[in-house]
Amino acid sequence: MPAAENEPRPAKSGTPAKSEKLAKGEKPAQGEKPAKGEKSEQTRTLILETAMRLFQERGYDKTTMRAIAQEAGVSVGNAYYYFAGKEHLIQGFYDRIAAEHQAAVREVLDRETDLQARLSGVLQAWLDIATPYHEFAAQFFKNAADPDSPLSPFSAESEHAREAAIDVHREVLAGAKGKVPAELRDVLPELMWLSQMGLVLYWVFDRSPGSERTRRLADRGARLTARSIALARFRVLRPIVLEIHELFTDFLPGMAQTAVARKS
Amino acid sequence: MPAAENEPRPAKSGTPAKSEKLAKGEKPAQGEKPAKGEKSEQTRTLILETAMRLFQERGYDKTTMRAIAQEAGVSVGNAYYYFAGKEHLIQGFYDRIAAEHQAAVREVLDRETDLQARLSGVLQAWLDIATPYHEFAAQFFKNAADPDSPLSPFSAESEHAREAAIDVHREVLAGAKGKVPAELRDVLPELMWLSQMGLVLYWVFDRSPGSERTRRLADRGARLTARSIALARFRVLRPIVLEIHELFTDFLPGMAQTAVARKS
Repeated sequence: MPAAENEPRPAKSGTPAKSEKLAKGEKPAQGEKPAKGEKSEQTRTLILETAMRLFQERGYDKTTMRAIAQEAGVSVGNAYYYFAGKEHLIQGFYDRIAAEHQAAVREVLDRETDLQARLSGVLQAWLDIATPYHEFAAQFFKNAADPDSPLSPFSAESEHAREAAIDVHREVLAGAKGKVPAELRDVLPELMWLSQMGLVLYWVFDRSPGSERTRRLADRGARLTARSIALARFRVLRPIVLEIHELFTDFLPGMAQTAVARKS
Repeated sequence: MPAAENEPRPAKSGTPAKSEKLAKGEKPAQGEKPAKGEKSEQTRTLILETAMRLFQERGYDKTTMRAIAQEAGVSVGNAYYYFAGKEHLIQGFYDRIAAEHQAAVREVLDRETDLQARLSGVLQAWLDIATPYHEFAAQFFKNAADPDSPLSPFSAESEHAREAAIDVHREVLAGAKGKVPAELRDVLPELMWLSQMGLVLYWVFDRSPGSERTRRLADRGARLTARSIALARFRVLRPIVLEIHELFTDFLPGMAQTAVARKS
């Protein structure tokens, strides 16, 4: 499924409009676009940030699109123009976390060539970025835990954010010294991202100060991953790695699409 | 922590009593025991089955001990005598599932010597037993997902049921043809049980008819596990298996106790 379907963004061409001034609850007239260019991006960000604040304050389930629009000072129609629903706001949030993470890892990926150090740095950077959302993550978890939910990190709808996150692991691997067998080059970043999802699950429930237990787990996990990948030089192991990957691809609905997207 | 602390059972010696006839809400007088022997076991089972029915009908959070006692036709004091609280009822439920599973796997474990067939049979038997509780599992999941919750399969409180479940995997491995290196004999059953917990997580959210997706995953997982264990003949891999096990033991609160219990 193309990412554009899941994450509506303002169309590139559109009639300038001022639908922020539309009466609340009124949808913009057909063909009318709320804003464009920088202004449009600002409105989109405003709605997303307002939504995240309300989700954190009131809980995801109890927050309506109407309340988000009202609090952001835009019309309900305008809010729906940018985000087709609450689920799309969460996808927007996932995309934003992914983009912030991609920027934050530059420093460590440009500096380190050791696989363990690169992976550990990438995981710690994710925990830094996610810290403000820790409490939200705990209450939101029940919505994201079902792999069939569009809010799951494994869903078709989350593909855009997932691909960005897997890209980071592709770079972790590609820029590390030491050769990785060609037959594993495609599957390892996806498996590394799956381990990261395990770490995120652990973090959601971690109540240690500063999530220090999760931070230690990230470092231990990075060491274990680097050692396991080093073992890939033994040919006898490779079929097992491929079989593990195939298992996840076959049984997690979104992963198959990731694999298809990669091949095309 | 001794299992007895987590799962109070009627004391072996006790004054015969008929506290089912006590006024509702009245606690049995000190030294008075509600029942003994077979009768006691029957009352315990009645309370547990009533609780499970109410949990399924009304949800775990909304069901009180008072409502359970009332529905079971016993005094609140009597209900508390058998189960110190709702959490203890869940532990009783876990123990019961574990006991039913131990009985159900006899057939396959007495017959099969192939590791994959033994493991697959054990996992399918678990799915058979758990089927009536599938809907309950989905709503109860949020209470059990937090590894720090006493209701988590990883908690100290769940140790009794967890040990019984790990014992099944010990027998899966011990009775299979093919030698397992001594240094992995203790850790593999725990890792196999951890994979089973992954399967249970998948099952909780599986909406396919008859959980057929989970059943296929169980078979694939059994094949993958058997192949991975066969690779343990390569010495170079063993440190990684031990490191994976150590990681789980260090980061899941209940697993450390399991390891200590095993050694003592």
